[in-house]
Amino acid sequence: MTTEPDVLDAERAFEAELLQAQWLLPTLGAGVTGTGVAMEAVIQGLQRLARDRVARHLPRPGALQSVRFPPVNGRSMLERTDYVASFPQLLGTVDVFSGDTKDHRRLLADREAGLPWDGHLHTSDYALVPAACHPLYAWLSQVNAATVDGTVWTITGDCFRNEPSPDPMRLVSFRMLEFVLVGSPEQAVAHRTAMLELGQGLLAGLGLAVTVEGANDPFFGRAGVMLAKGQRAAELKFEITTEIYPGRNTAISSGNYHEDHFGAEFDLRTPDGSVAHSACFGFGLERIALALARTHGTDLRTWPESVRDLLGLDAA
Amino acid sequence: MTTEPDVLDAERAFEAELLQAQWLLPTLGAGVTGTGVAMEAVIQGLQRLARDRVARHLPRPGALQSVRFPPVNGRSMLERTDYVASFPQLLGTVDVFSGDTKDHRRLLADREAGLPWDGHLHTSDYALVPAACHPLYAWLSQVNAATVDGTVWTITGDCFRNEPSPDPMRLVSFRMLEFVLVGSPEQAVAHRTAMLELGQGLLAGLGLAVTVEGANDPFFGRAGVMLAKGQRAAELKFEITTEIYPGRNTAISSGNYHEDHFGAEFDLRTPDGSVAHSACFGFGLERIALALARTHGTDLRTWPESVRDLLGLDAA
Repeated sequence: MTTEPDVLDAERAFEAELLQAQWLLPTLGAGVTGTGVAMEAVIQGLQRLARDRVARHLPRPGALQSVRFPPVNGRSMLERTDYVASFPQLLGTVDVFSGDTKDHRRLLADREAGLPWDGHLHTSDYALVPAACHPLYAWLSQVNAATVDGTVWTITGDCFRNEPSPDPMRLVSFRMLEFVLVGSPEQAVAHRTAMLELGQGLLAGLGLAVTVEGANDPFFGRAGVMLAKGQRAAELKFEITTEIYPGRNTAISSGNYHEDHFGAEFDLRTPDGSVAHSACFGFGLERIALALARTHGTDLRTWPESVRDLLGLDAA
Repeated sequence: MTTEPDVLDAERAFEAELLQAQWLLPTLGAGVTGTGVAMEAVIQGLQRLARDRVARHLPRPGALQSVRFPPVNGRSMLERTDYVASFPQLLGTVDVFSGDTKDHRRLLADREAGLPWDGHLHTSDYALVPAACHPLYAWLSQVNAATVDGTVWTITGDCFRNEPSPDPMRLVSFRMLEFVLVGSPEQAVAHRTAMLELGQGLLAGLGLAVTVEGANDPFFGRAGVMLAKGQRAAELKFEITTEIYPGRNTAISSGNYHEDHFGAEFDLRTPDGSVAHSACFGFGLERIALALARTHGTDLRTWPESVRDLLGLDAA
């Protein structure tokens, strides 16, 4: 994708403003950023607000269950979700060292000589999680299928996608707050529809001008173009977007209907024995926080009272 | 380290109990676990309790600042903290794919044939963060040194250490809640002393029988034995331990005085221009939650009222 020079300038100016205000804290990795005091307060508030809204919105009390998975999982997850086929350009696997003292001396000698030392490491069975909901399907496949009954699972997960960019809206490591339903096709579609509406209302209530748009995932390569077209035609993916840079909308949330993609691979079944369908809705936590900074500024004290109230910023 | 058969049995029995109660949620990675509804409620309560206690304990109001760093950072961090020299057996670096459509076809062909496909990936500039406080020093080195004034930073960070184990108390990916001070030697030592006392009181108040012990980090190899002895002799590291398995104490928190190790490498200086010293105190969030399960059981409803109150479990 080519980026227009003026857009690049706008991205860099926004990043500079966020660094200056210590919303973003530099790290040693390109496209990886820490989160400063104010931005982190906004993100914690967003999570409380969204979880509370969804819990109150659900038809059955107690149907929202909050679980958590770490940023690392088994490498086989990338195979079972087909991520290695569809999004190889984004994945990350983990290398480790398991040599002895002699091997370590050789590694350090290379490092001392300014040579690469990664040749002394080897592939492990671990990979970074690219989407917060993937570990959920892998877990459900290992437990009693009685849990696949239309429960809504909420998960905040760290995701890794190898797409370093000057745009602070596109981070390599970021958090996604997801609400996931695994159940019948009807339940999955209804969940996505309800969540898109809830998400749109929530974000608009925070003062963001948002739009819902049909979308597609960044499938790799020439075959990926067809997959993306098919995804759009079947209306499987919608994004909630907002204008961060003039003339260009950026996604800050997305709602996805997976049909039986995960249900079939992980053998998840509904109580009647059918292969389960799934849908997830994700709030991009850093992206929403940054969209709020773009709209209301980086000084939380000057934010509209209603927004401060919704995010619980006075209590923080 | 050899593990006695009866200890191994005890570890496996504890893990089975935690899986049965859905405190631990299986993943596809050895030593990597998700966190179930009850365990996650305990962990969130622990974080609130500890941050509140420390904020109230500090001599200056507003001196506790909450920031956040992702689980991934630049690979150079492992070099600058000397982790690659001291703990190579624990580190994790990130491999990525940056080939074209043809390269991808070869990768998929290998995968299809059941062959390893990691040879199609290559080393990136990213690594997994092994200790929650490391990104803080890297950040402070990139901003105005005026922040190195005895502020206490609190960070919850995901840490990766490649030591898969059958013991649920020893996870490969885990969360550490840290309280870090970078300042004068006197400030750093006083911080560690105060935090060890506060941490001990907090954990005892939750019903855990805890002990403070001198300790050392698991430095690698033969040279590491000397480093470990030196660390103990200089009383740089203390752990708060509790008995999870009969006759053996497990660390659930630790307080570390780094002298000028990080200050010198990252050129952090106090207002008078001296190289800063640092100290951190870390609560092992999963370990503490599991120690509480060992003590009070996995059913939160039967936990002592005082413990439920401290962790805010009734509000959850």
